[in-house]
Amino acid sequence: MELVDIRDLFHHQEDYVGKKITVGGWVRSNRNSKNFGFIVVNDGTFFEPLQVVYADGLENFQELTKINVGAAIVVTGVLEATPEAKQPFEIQAEEIIIEGASAPDYPLQKKRHSFEYLRTISHLRPRTNTFEAVFRVRSLIAYAIHKFFQERDFVYVHTPLITGSDCEGAGEMFQVTTMDLNNIPHKEDGSIDYTQDFFGKPTNLTVSGQLNGETFALAFKNIYTFGPTFRAENSNTTRHAAEFWMIEPEIAFADLEDDMVLAESMLKYIISYVMEHAPEEMQFFNSFVDKGLIERLNNVLHSDFARVTYTEAIELLEKNNDKFDYKVSWGCDLQTEHERFLTEQVFKRPVFVTDYPKEIKAFYMKLNEDGKTVAAVDCLVPGIGEIIGGSQREDDYDKLLERIHELGLKEEDYSFYLDLRKYGSARHAGFGLGFERCVMYLTGMANIRDVIPFPRTVNTCEL
Amino acid sequence: MELVDIRDLFHHQEDYVGKKITVGGWVRSNRNSKNFGFIVVNDGTFFEPLQVVYADGLENFQELTKINVGAAIVVTGVLEATPEAKQPFEIQAEEIIIEGASAPDYPLQKKRHSFEYLRTISHLRPRTNTFEAVFRVRSLIAYAIHKFFQERDFVYVHTPLITGSDCEGAGEMFQVTTMDLNNIPHKEDGSIDYTQDFFGKPTNLTVSGQLNGETFALAFKNIYTFGPTFRAENSNTTRHAAEFWMIEPEIAFADLEDDMVLAESMLKYIISYVMEHAPEEMQFFNSFVDKGLIERLNNVLHSDFARVTYTEAIELLEKNNDKFDYKVSWGCDLQTEHERFLTEQVFKRPVFVTDYPKEIKAFYMKLNEDGKTVAAVDCLVPGIGEIIGGSQREDDYDKLLERIHELGLKEEDYSFYLDLRKYGSARHAGFGLGFERCVMYLTGMANIRDVIPFPRTVNTCEL
Repeated sequence: MELVDIRDLFHHQEDYVGKKITVGGWVRSNRNSKNFGFIVVNDGTFFEPLQVVYADGLENFQELTKINVGAAIVVTGVLEATPEAKQPFEIQAEEIIIEGASAPDYPLQKKRHSFEYLRTISHLRPRTNTFEAVFRVRSLIAYAIHKFFQERDFVYVHTPLITGSDCEGAGEMFQVTTMDLNNIPHKEDGSIDYTQDFFGKPTNLTVSGQLNGETFALAFKNIYTFGPTFRAENSNTTRHAAEFWMIEPEIAFADLEDDMVLAESMLKYIISYVMEHAPEEMQFFNSFVDKGLIERLNNVLHSDFARVTYTEAIELLEKNNDKFDYKVSWGCDLQTEHERFLTEQVFKRPVFVTDYPKEIKAFYMKLNEDGKTVAAVDCLVPGIGEIIGGSQREDDYDKLLERIHELGLKEEDYSFYLDLRKYGSARHAGFGLGFERCVMYLTGMANIRDVIPFPRTVNTCEL
Repeated sequence: MELVDIRDLFHHQEDYVGKKITVGGWVRSNRNSKNFGFIVVNDGTFFEPLQVVYADGLENFQELTKINVGAAIVVTGVLEATPEAKQPFEIQAEEIIIEGASAPDYPLQKKRHSFEYLRTISHLRPRTNTFEAVFRVRSLIAYAIHKFFQERDFVYVHTPLITGSDCEGAGEMFQVTTMDLNNIPHKEDGSIDYTQDFFGKPTNLTVSGQLNGETFALAFKNIYTFGPTFRAENSNTTRHAAEFWMIEPEIAFADLEDDMVLAESMLKYIISYVMEHAPEEMQFFNSFVDKGLIERLNNVLHSDFARVTYTEAIELLEKNNDKFDYKVSWGCDLQTEHERFLTEQVFKRPVFVTDYPKEIKAFYMKLNEDGKTVAAVDCLVPGIGEIIGGSQREDDYDKLLERIHELGLKEEDYSFYLDLRKYGSARHAGFGLGFERCVMYLTGMANIRDVIPFPRTVNTCEL
């Protein structure tokens, strides 16, 4: 008999109650008395499990009473409404096939496990409530992002992972090689002979697809990337992973204002989508992971994001310097404490901070008329601080070249990028959204290791 | 004035004809006589360009007559229907702002360029008809895949790129390291001291997310991956890239038959989606890249895929051994010439070949009752050969362990994988679809380098 997803039972109850159905799933709990028992079964398609009632009329009743948590079973029986119980219905088993038993040492017994422990069994943790919820929501957010951009006819671009260049000179990179490290080829002068490496030159894992993305924006007008990026930073924090996913839209014939409008619509779209498609999971996070989550997200949904320039923000923060570990003054980078103060205390909603000093931002950002600041924007949200960073790009060939020289970058590394300003340059802007940070924001999960299926961090590369 | 996408002009003509609009885009051609001129402008949002008519009433008329191909312009004027012309409408310019000129050495003058040449300017080639079409279709296929799986409530899993293990022992891998190759740390015994590498052990770029995907399928029932994979094979062919994207769905409580049903629905869904959303591009491919493409795809859409076992297929092929470079016999791997013969000559439609000898397939495939073959399936399509490879997975702990030992794999590397057979094992199956091969199949493009924005192959890692 064809299996029905538990999700469908809940979503289309009227089609199934009173009918005989078959469900396959994994045992979450099993309790019984002499003549009957209850198995709670979850098939991963829905956050709520299904209750199975079995009685000693079943020929394998004795065996069933001993089923361990984690076992895979296939249950056939009639779905009956249970108006007086907590759950809306249960299945009266006519047959239960044990498809795969679960050994008694199954690590996920019905008790609370710490997130730290669950990280050591990343192949099993999606079978727990919390991680089932996290990874379903992660999937929904990813889809919401694609849907948002595709509905607006943005072209999805796969920018390369292995790269011969270094986008912003930003951060430590991982080197990629096929050379035998026990026997590295050298040239006569003693330097490494990269002509013998796979690509004939040194290559790294990308830290951003932005520059590549720009080349496509200046052909398709509106594009986005959504792919993995890498940082080899030796920082062991709850917010940093060595491998994470990033979304980088880029829009042409568009300026910083358009960029902010896009970012705000995108965030609101994602939140709405997840609230609508995972209400059970969101309720769970709100109750057990981060009280206040839903209220906070609703607040974001229903506010217009605030706008403030960096210069104004510094003035606001300087008045409160006594509250901060790091005191601010014009020219400094904002720390998370400052960002959160602005969005949580001052504006009490998301805020765009714009026009940062050029010294603390990347070379490709458009120089403002004041000659001191660039058309950069960070989007700060309550509970987390910066979630998006973007900018209008320098579209003037001469100014861009000057900046490349000023910063001691190699002009020849950027000839393709300069070409974009030589042949049909157009104002354009874009931003980067760290996908994992977005998942943390929507679930309330506090550690990036708990929103990535198989996290990679310093000294950790399991499975 | 807010810019209108050219796509919207074509799709919602009735809303715009007779109205004043503004469009921003890039000049594809510019011709003029003494008193007026025509600019063909493309903004990347639609395959068809827009014709702009300008006359000497415009104050910058002289400048406009000299605009080079590739320049970025912003045009304001009334959109007028042109029922007697080839194009449905044109814009009568009241103002044309040159946003970014194009230098006279712009490499994409209005003439035909070879694909080989265009590969050397990967930052500009999306501005040509062919690559505009390819990369828009690539984007649409990617979205169609997400949409297909999400509509069926599959959970999208990001499996890791950097890995400490080697899925199938399949193919050469790229090593990932942060060690200084000029100064590799060694242990006392002379071996490399990987405790000083970023992850504390040797790591590589993944060749498949399947094994990780299985861990999630045995929690969520239905999952899919869609991410980059890597092969460091030193093969310089039109079908191999070092970095490519792969889709790997995995379904639990499902067997090989379910797997084939899923693969067939997915392929048909993708084709329908692209035909519906990019009719202009598909017509272009059919006319200029691969005559017969649309007929071939329609044939796929409207046939039930054939089924044949490997053993039967070998019998069919052996009768035609005189036609092949490589003669077949039971036990051999099928070459592209055999695959294409089966799907193009014998069945004249897509065909699933099942139940291959276990010796030529991976260790994780489910052993059939004959003890000789495994529940593997390849999907062959006309014009290309194998497009999908899948299998039902071995779900029996003892048989899997035996196979791991037989093949000399290290048991400890697969302990997580064995756990899935120890705790609630369920029949499950999945397949892999090479994304680029799928894009080639739908566009008729013959070289994988021409369907990847920035291709990575032996000795090539540009931009």
